[in-house]
Order: sequence, then C-alpha cells, then structure tokens
Amino acid sequence: MGHKLGIIGYGTMGSWHAANVRDRISDLDVALVYDINEEKIKKAQAEGFTTCGSAQEIYESDVDIVLIATPNDFHKDYSIAALNAGKNVVCEKPACMTVVELEEVIAASKRNGKIYTVHQNRRWDIDYDIARNILKQNLVGKPHQIYSRLYSNRNIPGDWRTIKSSGGGFLYDWGVHMIDQVLWMVDSKPVSVYAQLHHIYQTEVDDAIRVNINFENGVCAHIVADSWTFVNESRWHISGNDGTARIDNWFGRTGKIIKANVKKVDWTQGCVYTHNGLSRSMWPRPESEVEEIPLPISEKEPRWEEFYENLMATIEGKATQIVTHDEVRASLRVIEAAFESAEKCAVVKL
Amino acid sequence: MGHKLGIIGYGTMGSWHAANVRDRISDLDVALVYDINEEKIKKAQAEGFTTCGSAQEIYESDVDIVLIATPNDFHKDYSIAALNAGKNVVCEKPACMTVVELEEVIAASKRNGKIYTVHQNRRWDIDYDIARNILKQNLVGKPHQIYSRLYSNRNIPGDWRTIKSSGGGFLYDWGVHMIDQVLWMVDSKPVSVYAQLHHIYQTEVDDAIRVNINFENGVCAHIVADSWTFVNESRWHISGNDGTARIDNWFGRTGKIIKANVKKVDWTQGCVYTHNGLSRSMWPRPESEVEEIPLPISEKEPRWEEFYENLMATIEGKATQIVTHDEVRASLRVIEAAFESAEKCAVVKL
Repeated sequence: MGHKLGIIGYGTMGSWHAANVRDRISDLDVALVYDINEEKIKKAQAEGFTTCGSAQEIYESDVDIVLIATPNDFHKDYSIAALNAGKNVVCEKPACMTVVELEEVIAASKRNGKIYTVHQNRRWDIDYDIARNILKQNLVGKPHQIYSRLYSNRNIPGDWRTIKSSGGGFLYDWGVHMIDQVLWMVDSKPVSVYAQLHHIYQTEVDDAIRVNINFENGVCAHIVADSWTFVNESRWHISGNDGTARIDNWFGRTGKIIKANVKKVDWTQGCVYTHNGLSRSMWPRPESEVEEIPLPISEKEPRWEEFYENLMATIEGKATQIVTHDEVRASLRVIEAAFESAEKCAVVKL
Repeated sequence: MGHKLGIIGYGTMGSWHAANVRDRISDLDVALVYDINEEKIKKAQAEGFTTCGSAQEIYESDVDIVLIATPNDFHKDYSIAALNAGKNVVCEKPACMTVVELEEVIAASKRNGKIYTVHQNRRWDIDYDIARNILKQNLVGKPHQIYSRLYSNRNIPGDWRTIKSSGGGFLYDWGVHMIDQVLWMVDSKPVSVYAQLHHIYQTEVDDAIRVNINFENGVCAHIVADSWTFVNESRWHISGNDGTARIDNWFGRTGKIIKANVKKVDWTQGCVYTHNGLSRSMWPRPESEVEEIPLPISEKEPRWEEFYENLMATIEGKATQIVTHDEVRASLRVIEAAFESAEKCAVVKL
C-alpha cells in the first residue's frame, strides 16, 4: 500500500527528508512540499518536487503523512492543524517548545485517531547502537557513569537557531537528541536534572550545554554538547562495575572495552611515584588483571529507513510506533528541567 | 639556619616525607619519628630514622616543625597539640574533617604564633603547572570549562581509607587535591557546588566522585576522580572563548592547544552528513581556520622542594606561606558542600 508525504518547511532538514524519502523509502512518495519562503519553494522545484502555496493545500490533499520541518516555535501549530486535517504527523525534533504545548498535540493525535511521532533519527546512529548494545549486553556490568559528548567548533548556525523565541540554542538542537538517546538506553526512570547552559558567543540562546541526568537505578548520565571546543573527546565513555567502554566518535566502530578480570587487589604491592609524591590508588593494574573485549557492533548497520517503515506499518495497524508519546514527553520534560536548573542553579527533581 | 622535623605517622605518606626531606631538602633534618604502630616504628628505624614512643616526646623535643601524617580523623587533635607545644605544623591533606575543626586549628596557630600549613603537594605537579600556565598566559581566552580528571581502577586502598569515621573515600583523598588545584588556578570566587558521590564497591565511603564548581566569573570546573574506570581520559581539558587545551596525563608534557584563528564562519558553506541525517553545527572547521600552539611547559620543572623551603623561609620571616589558611579553608568548604550536595541531591551555594 503506497503512502504519500507532504512536507511543511523545506530548510536543511525538510530538504534532507525529501531527498532521502525519495531515494531510500519504498512505498512513500514525496507528494507535496510547502515553505513560506519563495526561494525554498523554488529550490524544492529545482530538486524535482511538486510544491504548493500553503499548508492548507497539503491538509486538503490526499497525502496521509505530513512532515513538519519548520523552526521549532511553529511545530505545535502545524502539528495540530495537520492532525485536525486527518493527517498522520512526523515532527522534527524538538517536538514542541514545552510539555504543555506537547500535551495539546498529543490530545489532537488521540482526538483525531492519527499517528503523531517525532523524528528522533539519532536513535539509528552507529555509535549509539553500539553504546546501547553495551548496556543491553551487560558488557561493563552495572553502569554508573555515561558520558555522551559532541563537540563542534563553529558556534551556532545563524538564522532562527540563534533566536530564543524560535527555539534556538544547543539544548533544543543537539540536547534533545542526546537526551532521547540516553533515556532510550538506560533501563530506569530519570529522577533529577542538573544543567549548565553557557553563552560563549550567543546572547539569546545557549551554545554549550552540560546536562546531568540522575536515574533511579543510580546511573548518572552526563550530556555534553559544545559548539566551541577545538580538541575533541570520545563520543561515549561508559563505566560500570565490571569495566569501561569508550566509543571514539559518532561514526562509531572505533573504541574499546576494558574489563577487570580480577576484582580483588593486593594493596600491599605497589604505588605510583611522581616527583611530588606518591599514590597507592593511582597504581595501575597489571595487564594480566584486565582484558579487552570488542565493541558490540551490530552485524547489520542500524537502518534509518526503519523510522518511516515503522510509521507506515503503524498507520496500517501492523506495528506500534518506535518513537512514542511517552518518550517524547520524557525528553521534553528533561529539557524543561535543564532550562529551569540552569536558570535557578539548582537540581530539578522530575 | 637548620630546622628539625618531627613526624607523627609513618604510613605511606609519613615515610615518603621522611625519605624525601632527607634526600632533597637542605637545612631540614628528620629528627624524630613517631607512630602508634610498633611495626611502623621498626620500619622507620630500619630506614635510618630516630624514633620515639609518643607524640609528646616530639612536642618536648627541639624539633621546630611537626608533620602530621596520620589518618584524617587525627589531623585536628595532633595539629592543635603540636601548635600548643610551640611547633610549626605541616599537616597532610585533608587539613581536617570539617571547616569547624579547621577553625580550631587556625585559632591555635594564631594563638601560638606558629605556622600551620597543609601539604598540598599536587600544586607542584607538572600537568598542573601547565594547566595553570594555560590560564595565566591566557592561551585559550576566557575559560568556560575546566575538566580535571583522574581515573584509577583498583577501587580504594584498604585500611582506614575505606572507613567513613576515619575520613576515608576519594573526596577526602584525591578530591581535596583537585579542588585545591582548581581554586588556585581560577581567578574568581567559587559560588556553588554540585556533586555526585558514588559507592561502586565501598559502602561507607565514596569511591568515585564528580564535583562541579561554579565560579563567579562563569567558569565551570568539573572534577572527576574515579577508582573504577578502565579506559582513561585526558587529565585536563580546558575550553575558553579562543580555543581548547588538552593535557594527556599527570606526567604532563603531552597534549595540545588548538585555537580558532577565524572566529566568524560562513554557515552557507557546509554540512556533515551521516547516514541518518545531517548537521550544520557539527561541520568541522577547515585546518586553515585553526592553529595549534605548544603547551606552556615551564622551563624549569616545578620543584616540590619549594614547599618545605617556603615553610622554613616563612618561619624565618623571609617569606609568606604558599598554602594559606584561607586556601585550605576554601577547599575544605567545597568538600563539605560536595558532601552536602550529594546527600541532598541539590546545588549548594557557598
């Protein structure tokens, strides 16, 4: 059964969806594209897509799926309008600016009996797949620390991304991906958030974030996204009571897992000496007491195509949606808590 | 003018002081050693030192400097007793268990007109010297993030270090060094603390710490000391509004500083494509827009000997002490705040 996609917003992400749905997704046609900007309409036409002059034309057309890829502050209204028009909706992340807005959208989804989901595409990243497998396969034992880090060094792209009322800033942009990833891999409830939001070159919006999420089971996730850091660190660093894993970068595949194969230590044996002192605790383990195991790289690469395939199957009643309302709400709740935490310099309980 | 050192506590650190003072410090003789443990007394004798049967004998002797290198919960009482006996005191870190205890010791120092200082020997580490120079020489611009990290993987050394009432745990052990270092390099007042203290294998004491210190000037210091991590990360990672510095390990010397030489970016130019999406913000700078500068390695290695040399010069009225009462109080205040923060899961304002 064929599905038809209407796209509202033909910016960076909207045009990416258009090209990738056309090239990679069977049974889904990019039927109509709308943008408020005439130049982007022309670009869509030049790239071979049929365009229209208003969102209303998409609502009145026979497309059954509408993608919202506008600036963030337009997500709520377009989502609700499309759902009210009887369309299934994919919204770019962040779903909405606030949880209150999101509840309105979820209500519209339920009222109209139409699917509403959010394009959390970073769930299909190779590095993330490996990180999630590390926990699922219990490769470092009971985890206690998860560092998830992404560093860029150009600050924030211009346009609406630098404007607060448009939902600009790194927390809404990359934070929402990294929070969604962590919530989807830790098998426990997030209970509190502590965040530091920086303004290195941006005045209105955050351009470097540090978000700590504490989970009920004791896991601490440290999310770091920084737009002004010139020396990279590993994408993931995960420690558990058996060992530690590192994944080098977001292209995945390189990194390592080191585990202790001897947990007891004879402390009478050694010390590290530096010219200023000594340390027993920093005395390294001999190689015989640790072992390296390979990263759990899935045999098949994670397929982004699953996102749209799952959506179509859900519409057809053959599947349940991958990115659920509860998950979208949970990420947005953490984002709200992070804004509140940074503003008050306080821990926010969820 | 020669000085004489009496040592109370001949454990790991006490014996290190004895040997290093003997071998490296002119004008200071290790005159007397006391330990409550008969075996350690014998060890001191075997290593060539004169021992005695009580701390009182040290107080009544002609030593002018007393080193306290006992478990942490004995620091206060021995420090006060030695000061009251008219001795100058060097105490191992942490100075005391609490700020209230410390105030008693400082009062005894003032009342008796004798020097009281704390062996914050990690101020003379090579990696720290470089990190401090990075800020002093303004090599990364206005700093916003400082990561100071030390990972070991044997958990906590046995004995009193695992006992809460003795002042065991990683916060008192390594935290106090790393906090002192950060407070001594950032030219601003610490204003708040958020800490996570973990119990990976220890029940009474923390064996992995994450301490965030926020400074009045906007700098965030992240102190990480973990006794159960098998994949290392860089010792220092410092970002400022001009660039980023990394120092690889505590032996110093290796690492790098990368700076932006073009701060404006033409955002129309590029994107990073991954198979699941794209990112403008993660688009890396071309090499022509960054430059690498060398780490500021001091011509002369920092000399730990300065600690005792400064102490003797201070006693002689020729210098002021390097590790001051205010600095010791400030570190201990952060430690107290970290304990409180972790217990309440709250940010503690200083």
